[in-house]
Amino acid sequence: MSIITLTTDFGLGSPYVAAMKGVILSVNPAAVVVDLSHDIPPQNIRQAALVLEEVTPYYPAGTIHVVVVDPGVGTERALIYARFGGQHYLAPDNGVLSRLARQQQPEEVRRLENRQLWRHPVSNTFHGRDILAPVAGHLSLGIGPAELGPPAQLSVLLDWPQARILPDRIVGVVEEIDSFGNLITNIRAEALAGRPTDRRAVVVCGIYETYGIYSAYAQQPEDSLVALISSSGRLELALVGSNAARRLGITVGTPVTVAWE
Amino acid sequence: MSIITLTTDFGLGSPYVAAMKGVILSVNPAAVVVDLSHDIPPQNIRQAALVLEEVTPYYPAGTIHVVVVDPGVGTERALIYARFGGQHYLAPDNGVLSRLARQQQPEEVRRLENRQLWRHPVSNTFHGRDILAPVAGHLSLGIGPAELGPPAQLSVLLDWPQARILPDRIVGVVEEIDSFGNLITNIRAEALAGRPTDRRAVVVCGIYETYGIYSAYAQQPEDSLVALISSSGRLELALVGSNAARRLGITVGTPVTVAWE
Amino acid sequence: MSIITLTTDFGLGSPYVAAMKGVILSVNPAAVVVDLSHDIPPQNIRQAALVLEEVTPYYPAGTIHVVVVDPGVGTERALIYARFGGQHYLAPDNGVLSRLARQQQPEEVRRLENRQLWRHPVSNTFHGRDILAPVAGHLSLGIGPAELGPPAQLSVLLDWPQARILPDRIVGVVEEIDSFGNLITNIRAEALAGRPTDRRAVVVCGIYETYGIYSAYAQQPEDSLVALISSSGRLELALVGSNAARRLGITVGTPVTVAWE
Repeated sequence: MSIITLTTDFGLGSPYVAAMKGVILSVNPAAVVVDLSHDIPPQNIRQAALVLEEVTPYYPAGTIHVVVVDPGVGTERALIYARFGGQHYLAPDNGVLSRLARQQQPEEVRRLENRQLWRHPVSNTFHGRDILAPVAGHLSLGIGPAELGPPAQLSVLLDWPQARILPDRIVGVVEEIDSFGNLITNIRAEALAGRPTDRRAVVVCGIYETYGIYSAYAQQPEDSLVALISSSGRLELALVGSNAARRLGITVGTPVTVAWE
Repeated sequence: MSIITLTTDFGLGSPYVAAMKGVILSVNPAAVVVDLSHDIPPQNIRQAALVLEEVTPYYPAGTIHVVVVDPGVGTERALIYARFGGQHYLAPDNGVLSRLARQQQPEEVRRLENRQLWRHPVSNTFHGRDILAPVAGHLSLGIGPAELGPPAQLSVLLDWPQARILPDRIVGVVEEIDSFGNLITNIRAEALAGRPTDRRAVVVCGIYETYGIYSAYAQQPEDSLVALISSSGRLELALVGSNAARRLGITVGTPVTVAWE
Repeated sequence: MSIITLTTDFGLGSPYVAAMKGVILSVNPAAVVVDLSHDIPPQNIRQAALVLEEVTPYYPAGTIHVVVVDPGVGTERALIYARFGGQHYLAPDNGVLSRLARQQQPEEVRRLENRQLWRHPVSNTFHGRDILAPVAGHLSLGIGPAELGPPAQLSVLLDWPQARILPDRIVGVVEEIDSFGNLITNIRAEALAGRPTDRRAVVVCGIYETYGIYSAYAQQPEDSLVALISSSGRLELALVGSNAARRLGITVGTPVTVAWE
């Protein structure tokens, strides 16, 4: 299997991305390199962690995911290899894998220390190009994880607030905003499952509220606020045909409450 | 042939695009996935229809084009397979193929109903990932269109205004604005072909006018408005070295007239 | 070897990029097409020249780099083939290869004149699609450069100011701004190498100054201006965790001086 994905905060079209691809293809010209996301906001480890959790499960086992959201580049922070669900991750040990780690133990973690697999000279400011990219190339050629370096552990596990499930309501927050401006909350579909079907849900987000949980955007008129279950299985609020985050001024962290009439 | 292109309104760098690629590669790891465009303005079916007409003819026969500009996702709108010129299209039946259909009859149309080819559970808000992507993967592995579902027809055909060709002038509109801000009209090169060569063309666009039809931008000085034939064979207006749409405040739908002195 | 990279000023997500990919894949369906950069500012030949110099050395020998930053499209400017370091370049002869040419003589230069390799009809406004893309496809299939056209020379060599190395200081400019807003200067690491290590460097950029040259961003607190060596071996100024160019209002060409206390 030779699929390698890249997740960075370099910005779309950054030549830094292209340099990493060149290094990978120099090691393994047959590697299939896929852009997972390059518009993670600069240094936003939390956003990268969410994207990895949502997207990488759709890739086949054996895929290699390279993550370069690395404000500590050049300091003592470790670079690591971790395997979750048969997929390989190469990343700084800065919490970027901590959403994945919330759901499952990694099957293996290694600290990248085998300098023979790196590109030399190694710059102090771009380990993505000089360490992670060539290591990904070698992994895709079939090298075993044990050759990357000694066993290690994830040392940074960020805190991810969970929705509180109370008898009469569920209290969460906007966890993520997608490219349409839809508001994705940390309230999981399962938390809503056992609730009364004979009473209408009341969803409050910041100063806005909406009634009912729908199954498609187009079930409500243009510009109305609609609650539904997102494609990642979380409660989502959207402004039909428009951008809810921008129009309503809602940001990540805004409280969201679901109650029943 | 295993080329699969993606056209969406997800925005560049959206993790939704990466999820679709993961699903495709899980079905067919040898598929070659190409980004056709992901910056179709949200829900802008007309813009997607124009892009498909302009770009897909450059792809080899057998290419599979997946289109996810789908404001009606989760409602009763159908998802369809259509074949034009030996190329395969998978899209919502919402008019997004209606520019292609203006020029030619589809060779085959099917309604996607074979749920065995889908990814389960199917979300209500992301059929691109759960239906179109896996169906594209299976098509690229060699499944026949007949296995996708029953014969159907394109039911939504949008209206595309044509330029009016009058004895003394041609009257059209700005149909599209490209990434340089150049104004692409609906006046085809052929409509201009039989016109007097001893008289200079006068091209009027909104409140602006320019004289002559040139063959290259650089034939006129910087910042002058120049008319020429676009790479898609339509009359185009450009501001040399600059962005005509932004500088002149011109939008899609602005009237354009060509007359002769 | 069938890697083909694309560098254009078309803007990310432009359908023009997708059209070029279709043409390449129509000639050689096995070509691996990589986006080097599509957000070169429109008509900015200098920026494209810098990106090519920085990124293409990371690609394997035999890679074909197609460059479409071409304000003179349709005029008499030549399209050329050039080979540097075993890598192939297809580009307009407008100076876009002049950073590469500053360091090394091209091993071979040809003027593209073999119309049999082109896509017909050739438009006047999009030679990237109609000439460079099919020629790249044929090159990737193994055609020899001699078949592309007659020997030629690079005729446009832009001027690239070099830092002045004086006894007590080095005087340069901001040469480039990356996607993080970091300021990359034209002062090379080698120019700094022999300087006194017992005296602290004073780096002045426009009206700002900073002390010392560090090896990692995170060695200084958030929001402080830090000087370090960039991943391309040049003196770089960054605002830790922030965007120096935007926050300090610094643009390409701003003077930068290094002295020692």
